[in-house]
Amino acid sequence: MAPVGAALWRSLRAHQVYGANTDVGKTIVSTVLCNAVQRQKQQAAFLKPVSTGPLDDADDQHLKRFGAGTLTKCLYQFDEPVSPHIAARQKTIPRDDDLLASIHKTLTGWAQSDIDFALVETAGGVHSPGPNGNSQADLYRPLRLPIVLVADARLGGISCSISAYESLLLRGYDVQSVLLFRDDYYKNHEYLREFFNNKSIPLVPLPAPPARPFPQDVDSQKRDEEAMATYYQRVSQESDILRLLEDMSKRNTDRVQRLEEMADRAQDLIWYPFTQHQGMAAKDITVIDSAHDDYFQTFRSDRTIANESELQPTFDGSASWWTQGLGHGNPELSLSAAYAAGRYGHVMFAGAVHEPALSLADKLLKTIGNPRFTKVFYTDNGSTGMEVAVKMGLRAACERYGWDASQEQISILGLKGSYHGDTIGVMDCSEPSTFNKKVEWYRGRGHWFDFPLVKMVQGKWKVEVPTSLQKELGSDVEFDSLGAVFDLDQRVNSDSGRRYRDYIYCTIEDLVKRQGMKFGALILEPVLLGAGGMLFCDPLFQRCLNEVVRDNPELFTSNSVSPKQSPSWSGLPVIFDEVFTGLYRLGRRSSASFLGVHADVAVNAKLLTGGLIPLCTTVASQEIFEAFSSPEKSDALLHGHSYTAHAVGCTVAVDSLRAMAQLDTDGSWDGYRADWGAKVQPPESGAVPNVWSVWSQGLLKDLSCAETVESVFALGTVLVIALRDVHGGGYTSTASKGLQQKLATGGDQFNVHSRVLGNVLYLMSSVTSKPQSLREMEALLRSALL
Amino acid sequence: MAPVGAALWRSLRAHQVYGANTDVGKTIVSTVLCNAVQRQKQQAAFLKPVSTGPLDDADDQHLKRFGAGTLTKCLYQFDEPVSPHIAARQKTIPRDDDLLASIHKTLTGWAQSDIDFALVETAGGVHSPGPNGNSQADLYRPLRLPIVLVADARLGGISCSISAYESLLLRGYDVQSVLLFRDDYYKNHEYLREFFNNKSIPLVPLPAPPARPFPQDVDSQKRDEEAMATYYQRVSQESDILRLLEDMSKRNTDRVQRLEEMADRAQDLIWYPFTQHQGMAAKDITVIDSAHDDYFQTFRSDRTIANESELQPTFDGSASWWTQGLGHGNPELSLSAAYAAGRYGHVMFAGAVHEPALSLADKLLKTIGNPRFTKVFYTDNGSTGMEVAVKMGLRAACERYGWDASQEQISILGLKGSYHGDTIGVMDCSEPSTFNKKVEWYRGRGHWFDFPLVKMVQGKWKVEVPTSLQKELGSDVEFDSLGAVFDLDQRVNSDSGRRYRDYIYCTIEDLVKRQGMKFGALILEPVLLGAGGMLFCDPLFQRCLNEVVRDNPELFTSNSVSPKQSPSWSGLPVIFDEVFTGLYRLGRRSSASFLGVHADVAVNAKLLTGGLIPLCTTVASQEIFEAFSSPEKSDALLHGHSYTAHAVGCTVAVDSLRAMAQLDTDGSWDGYRADWGAKVQPPESGAVPNVWSVWSQGLLKDLSCAETVESVFALGTVLVIALRDVHGGGYTSTASKGLQQKLATGGDQFNVHSRVLGNVLYLMSSVTSKPQSLREMEALLRSALL
Repeated sequence: MAPVGAALWRSLRAHQVYGANTDVGKTIVSTVLCNAVQRQKQQAAFLKPVSTGPLDDADDQHLKRFGAGTLTKCLYQFDEPVSPHIAARQKTIPRDDDLLASIHKTLTGWAQSDIDFALVETAGGVHSPGPNGNSQADLYRPLRLPIVLVADARLGGISCSISAYESLLLRGYDVQSVLLFRDDYYKNHEYLREFFNNKSIPLVPLPAPPARPFPQDVDSQKRDEEAMATYYQRVSQESDILRLLEDMSKRNTDRVQRLEEMADRAQDLIWYPFTQHQGMAAKDITVIDSAHDDYFQTFRSDRTIANESELQPTFDGSASWWTQGLGHGNPELSLSAAYAAGRYGHVMFAGAVHEPALSLADKLLKTIGNPRFTKVFYTDNGSTGMEVAVKMGLRAACERYGWDASQEQISILGLKGSYHGDTIGVMDCSEPSTFNKKVEWYRGRGHWFDFPLVKMVQGKWKVEVPTSLQKELGSDVEFDSLGAVFDLDQRVNSDSGRRYRDYIYCTIEDLVKRQGMKFGALILEPVLLGAGGMLFCDPLFQRCLNEVVRDNPELFTSNSVSPKQSPSWSGLPVIFDEVFTGLYRLGRRSSASFLGVHADVAVNAKLLTGGLIPLCTTVASQEIFEAFSSPEKSDALLHGHSYTAHAVGCTVAVDSLRAMAQLDTDGSWDGYRADWGAKVQPPESGAVPNVWSVWSQGLLKDLSCAETVESVFALGTVLVIALRDVHGGGYTSTASKGLQQKLATGGDQFNVHSRVLGNVLYLMSSVTSKPQSLREMEALLRSALL
Repeated sequence: MAPVGAALWRSLRAHQVYGANTDVGKTIVSTVLCNAVQRQKQQAAFLKPVSTGPLDDADDQHLKRFGAGTLTKCLYQFDEPVSPHIAARQKTIPRDDDLLASIHKTLTGWAQSDIDFALVETAGGVHSPGPNGNSQADLYRPLRLPIVLVADARLGGISCSISAYESLLLRGYDVQSVLLFRDDYYKNHEYLREFFNNKSIPLVPLPAPPARPFPQDVDSQKRDEEAMATYYQRVSQESDILRLLEDMSKRNTDRVQRLEEMADRAQDLIWYPFTQHQGMAAKDITVIDSAHDDYFQTFRSDRTIANESELQPTFDGSASWWTQGLGHGNPELSLSAAYAAGRYGHVMFAGAVHEPALSLADKLLKTIGNPRFTKVFYTDNGSTGMEVAVKMGLRAACERYGWDASQEQISILGLKGSYHGDTIGVMDCSEPSTFNKKVEWYRGRGHWFDFPLVKMVQGKWKVEVPTSLQKELGSDVEFDSLGAVFDLDQRVNSDSGRRYRDYIYCTIEDLVKRQGMKFGALILEPVLLGAGGMLFCDPLFQRCLNEVVRDNPELFTSNSVSPKQSPSWSGLPVIFDEVFTGLYRLGRRSSASFLGVHADVAVNAKLLTGGLIPLCTTVASQEIFEAFSSPEKSDALLHGHSYTAHAVGCTVAVDSLRAMAQLDTDGSWDGYRADWGAKVQPPESGAVPNVWSVWSQGLLKDLSCAETVESVFALGTVLVIALRDVHGGGYTSTASKGLQQKLATGGDQFNVHSRVLGNVLYLMSSVTSKPQSLREMEALLRSALL
């Protein structure tokens, strides 16, 4: 099923009519508006997607009768006057996706046949269930039509109307106008007019419609009809209504115009991250009107069909810089955020505690499942969380080895291609590269190992050893499955394992004993080095690196003093940067579990809030924590941002972790696991090859044989395609631009927004992406590459 | 008027009853619950704060009649059966604060007289207006009683019930139970039970109450009463109800127990920012249950009166680390956050644009009002925003002066006591201090001027010149008013001005020409150096520093090459760190306006989101931007966090800036301005002494004469009290601990949570703090110090 696009046309002003409650007069309001449009010699149309109750009473019939020529349509009719979710039990139910597609198709048809104004009327109140039992406010959200809210004029109606408005807002709807009947006793319209005017939303009170004739006799239907006709004739000419229609029209025009100019305005005002502005044109900027689930709704700047919708669904193929987990516009997370904002706002964290920060610390320690970790330190993003981790590691090492860091340079041990963030301190933890070497204060402080890569080439999994290291590490090795690559308990005693350890030992020994370097921490991104080019490191190499560092503490003392006894860490503090790789990005709670290594410090961010707002945690072992313990305040970890442990982020994170943990165990991913032959109920141990991806094995095999493809890799939600580049690849390569372009425009049902790193194009899903979206993208990849 | 505390007692389970709509049976539900409690030999009580309609029909009368001995009380009775805000027009209206105080007092009285269970019933629906026209959900929020929600069983009731629930949630309420009448035709209870059970909220359907007898005759009242009595007798013994009461009781107990253990749990799990954990005890941790407006609701760990509320209001006297602007739990900001979360979640920003990021860029550039600024770069917090600013400044300077920063050290020019954040790169921008010198990778890179301070001593404003500089800068100068200190157009040509410039010029000349230093940027916190100890710098000194740097570009070339022509910046890029001082913290949109200087780069954070969530902007001039322009991608500003320009933060910021700008012009601050003799409608120019504070001039005069006080200062929302310390003051001083302790426990009406920096205690309000809260704090300060 294709995802539905958000609905916006230049020529057709389309709106959705929601009621603050049932029986507030939605259909009468719709009829008034359509009447008024028709009287202005424009064409109005009325769509009732789902109607319940006897056909004679149906709302579209009412419009047909009184709509002054309004075009009407009903998509699904149920007889019983109850909620659609109950009525729908009577007969075949349209799937929600089909219903949305039908609405979109109907509106598109109307836009293309010169209809000027359309109303899509809902049933009951905003949260009244649709045919499949989902709240209409959720069901219709992908269309994100601007809203005409019919407020409630009765006693209690103020409350219902404001609550309905709030429910719409927290799903990202724009309420553009409010109408209700005038009731001069309760005067809800006065109160609500002030309320909505403060929000720049016009409210128009309508005269109450004529009472139903009583007693009901043979003439009553006729009298009723006459009275209604007179009512509509009168009301639809009221100046308030005409002004409202003008306002609605202007809002539609303004919205399209704003979308048209946004790229230019952005080009003027925005300094983009990681972007060379020279040569960048406004047309290179994607204008995102909204997003839902896995899809951006992007402005279609190059329409080819007349009166096509201005917006189109575009798959968020970089998971919005690797952050997305539970879908854009997730109403549960919106509500979590709103609750925390309402309960706390932000409250001071130094010397204080609040429930969300405490709950998250507790939950996170359990989620990561590393028994060493006892303490949680909060920051705002991966870069600052890594700065904290570095401060922790360096302090612990200096304390153990008795170094005075103000007098000597303490370095980092890591891998080439590592990346830990954009602040200068953590930039220094990576070797000189495109990302950092032109930053004026960058001074790389460390040694970075080259390492063997895991990739699929020509249908075969292999560990590829860099040519320069083949003497030490041996030549490339092929594997039957990715699971076999990750079977470290097996591989650790292999010839490769011995060679890796020997090489690592000798290298460190040379660096310390002969070159005089001092190391303060081992920092790794477990399994996958992200920004460095989506490099999948042979997990055995990372495992061996850990073992050598921990098993040989004497390596790191430059003199003969033997290091202090170490209750937990040994050699160097081991820091795992799981900002990108942790929390289900690779299909597991913690990417450290692929290595079977318990780090001393770990950093999590990105998916931590399910993909909503920035938050980062640095967790540490008790012994690392105690390295800062002293009678001196100035020995403390003197780090802390203003919004440390902000309640909104912590609350959303608690709920996100809960939701992701549930997906891990409720069978949601069993299909993927089966495709990869992974265990369905995974024990979290590196020993068991529980290795799978949302991307199908078959796709990888096929793509890896394509002429233009150098290699492929997939794990968890990540798919990496390295393209051949005769000029050698790397960050400045443009080899993947062509594929990126094909994805951006080539979809039958939707396009795909992707990011590239030199000759590498990667795709990344959320943890809730629908298999059919993924398979559709796979088809797109096949057609582009095979 | 004293702020009301949130309501929580160990012995008394107090709840508020909200209805999903009017006429859903709140009072019947209350009666059922009270009946059930009474039958368990516990004492129930029922409070109707505001009742409308004839006394005979009043809800408390119903409870009296059918409540099986339930204690009942009504605080305000209005005769007409309409919304309280209309009914209240008839007679004297209780102020909202009085109403809250009465409820709290009543409940406290009940808690102290061994009542076990209490219900506080609202009128109508959740947003039905209270007597003063404010939504009840907002009005009663300070009490934050746990909610019994009575859902709506009628057609449309599913929608109303869920929307009402959402409105409560986004105000930070905890809905603890849902009840409604069973209707086997609409079956709302089935749908809603599933809905609420998914949220771990129990829902209990009740049998529908007996129909009102018809026809109404002489016996009908009696028959009605008998039927109701039978109904209550039957329903209140149902096992569902008894289980629900048990659950409610357990939730109350669990909540108190959780609050009791939170400090210990935090001590176990949390690694606190800027905190030496050695010697820290759980009792030193403030447990914050919620916050509203300017007040935390803190757990009272040391109750002295039996059955006192477990929670007490505590003024957030550090504005939660300087972030607060528009009050905790601000419902407008919650809704803004929720809307953005619903519309976008977080969307990719590199190469894309969305409305909130664009609107904020536009609005911010207008708010700051510096014509040089054309570009906005987004990050997550002040520290990362300053890292970006440093990268900008260094690049621009290196480009202009032709330096290769990888080969030579480029330094920063600044002031002693500056602080720009906790990441290592910006730590290097400050001189060695307690905050940074023990950080292993810290390497201060710069020269930092000592400078004259502004303070009030013994009732007189003066500019105090450090003893070591009196030869160069002259001796201390007294002023009649703070306005006169800031009258820079006058002072710039004074003897002080000339001396300042000469001194600065000679110092830089010496550093560059003789010591061979190279400078890449001038970085200042305008007017007030925050973390460095709340130091108010003589604005004339900062003005002169700018002038010398800009007027003498030849100072910065170490060779005879004359610098390139400079369309905007000259000498050095000037970076203003307004993270703390900007956006109304000091009473003006931009603190740069106090200096009359237009910087080349400025950083804003903290108040940017009104105090809700992390977001930071670094704004820059076109020329700074163009220093990164090149055909090489690697010359770009390669910085960008995953959540760059996150939609939630940008949306909240747009709304916060709008709200703060309105306060600036709508007269809200006129009282403060009048007290300080400042212009009421301030033109934003450094030339006009528009200098004022929310803290009264009289307080400053008095405190500055106190024996234990060294000096005081106030500007905008900030009050600084430097206490005498025979040991010399500074960050490690404990002189202010005693005052902090008095504020934390000494209030008649509320306590004050404050932060100290060595011998300095500061207080900071939000921009919406109520004058009476401020005056109450002033009284507390007087009683502590005078």
